[in-house]
Amino acid sequence: MRFSLQTRFNDYDSKGHVNNAVYLTYFELGRNAAWRSAVGDGEPGFILARALVNFRSPAVPGEALAIEVSAGEMGTRSWTWRYHVVEEASGRLIADGETTQVLYDYSTRSTVVIDEALRARLGGI
Amino acid sequence: MRFSLQTRFNDYDSKGHVNNAVYLTYFELGRNAAWRSAVGDGEPGFILARALVNFRSPAVPGEALAIEVSAGEMGTRSWTWRYHVVEEASGRLIADGETTQVLYDYSTRSTVVIDEALRARLGGI
Amino acid sequence: MRFSLQTRFNDYDSKGHVNNAVYLTYFELGRNAAWRSAVGDGEPGFILARALVNFRSPAVPGEALAIEVSAGEMGTRSWTWRYHVVEEASGRLIADGETTQVLYDYSTRSTVVIDEALRARLGGI
Amino acid sequence: MRFSLQTRFNDYDSKGHVNNAVYLTYFELGRNAAWRSAVGDGEPGFILARALVNFRSPAVPGEALAIEVSAGEMGTRSWTWRYHVVEEASGRLIADGETTQVLYDYSTRSTVVIDEALRARLGGI
Repeated sequence: MRFSLQTRFNDYDSKGHVNNAVYLTYFELGRNAAWRSAVGDGEPGFILARALVNFRSPAVPGEALAIEVSAGEMGTRSWTWRYHVVEEASGRLIADGETTQVLYDYSTRSTVVIDEALRARLGGI
Repeated sequence: MRFSLQTRFNDYDSKGHVNNAVYLTYFELGRNAAWRSAVGDGEPGFILARALVNFRSPAVPGEALAIEVSAGEMGTRSWTWRYHVVEEASGRLIADGETTQVLYDYSTRSTVVIDEALRARLGGI
Repeated sequence: MRFSLQTRFNDYDSKGHVNNAVYLTYFELGRNAAWRSAVGDGEPGFILARALVNFRSPAVPGEALAIEVSAGEMGTRSWTWRYHVVEEASGRLIADGETTQVLYDYSTRSTVVIDEALRARLGGI
Repeated sequence: MRFSLQTRFNDYDSKGHVNNAVYLTYFELGRNAAWRSAVGDGEPGFILARALVNFRSPAVPGEALAIEVSAGEMGTRSWTWRYHVVEEASGRLIADGETTQVLYDYSTRSTVVIDEALRARLGGI
């Protein structure tokens, strides 16, 4: 799954680059779009366990950015998604990384085993 | 009521100044501290109806900032609080403004008349 | 000028509504798009003098939002733009407001008189 | 190095928890304080290469948070700092992680070898 990011003026910090923390917000945009596409709304949901970002090349004002989300490792109750933020015109890699989510039922407050059908959908984004 | 703000690196945008939207976050820090001091937790709460900011002098990295909250007009169901963001060392005015709140009971989803006791507390911050 | 906003999960605060400060970021998206469309890059630029927001109806998760920017009063060295944030499906008004900008040359660090050609472009967004 | 965080209302997202991206902002507060304490201002500076966050326990409104920064691995031109965000009253671990920085001279736009004196200061925070 890939789509364009609507960058905001205050995504850029006083160095003139997209601030490091904002990449987790971009990842979140990608993750939530992937989740809605694969699963929809309702229970179970997920909790975030871990996030990793590699800062590859600073994004500067005026550059159009896109995010790509792809499937990573799949565990029994958790799974990893990978992210690439690129400059749209050139494809230059700005940042990449991954997050690990745990399948979680907020109504029962407990983790949930990922069944085969969901495994296919989470891995097929 | 006056207290120091813990500024963050990404409060500053690519112009090297605290971004305009961040002042509403500073006002919110002041407002919530004033509310807790005057009223505490629980119902009624309030909803925000209006916010005004005047940008007086840019805040640059390295400057320590403080916020001051003071009472403004008091209506039947709403009231105004005023804010001054200053540079702590010199007292230089960075931004000022005001917000109007409506007393609101989230449990009944209705506005609430400000009684005399609350009026005194909201006006005495 | 009107366009869709790409809302972010952390635009919403613990009340489940778009946080008040985020509307100034939405206004900024609208303002910068209007500025680029009317003027482009380079000098002069502008500084922000004042911002006003009226919170009309809370925006909740799942709602698609759009922003509309329109011309307001025009002064000798400053001008006002107006903003409406609406829910796209119904047109429901979420927030409106205005900001006042002062035409400013960052290279000479001085305010600039708005000439007739620029007046037409700033007023024609 | 350890100090208190001034949490903000919009640090919390619609789940009622500090949003995941905000932890990188907390880390940045810790990192910049550690850098100023160890090195001060001026060149060389650093660029951020990598950030990792483990989300251990959600932080909820009303909890006072603190951050602790400690030294991690030291390379030739890069070094790692570790972060722990804790609930102040109980010491409960909220999130931990690390970031890797590369020593960088912005005036010459090149990476810099960490000399012995700097190594001691970066490792002694």
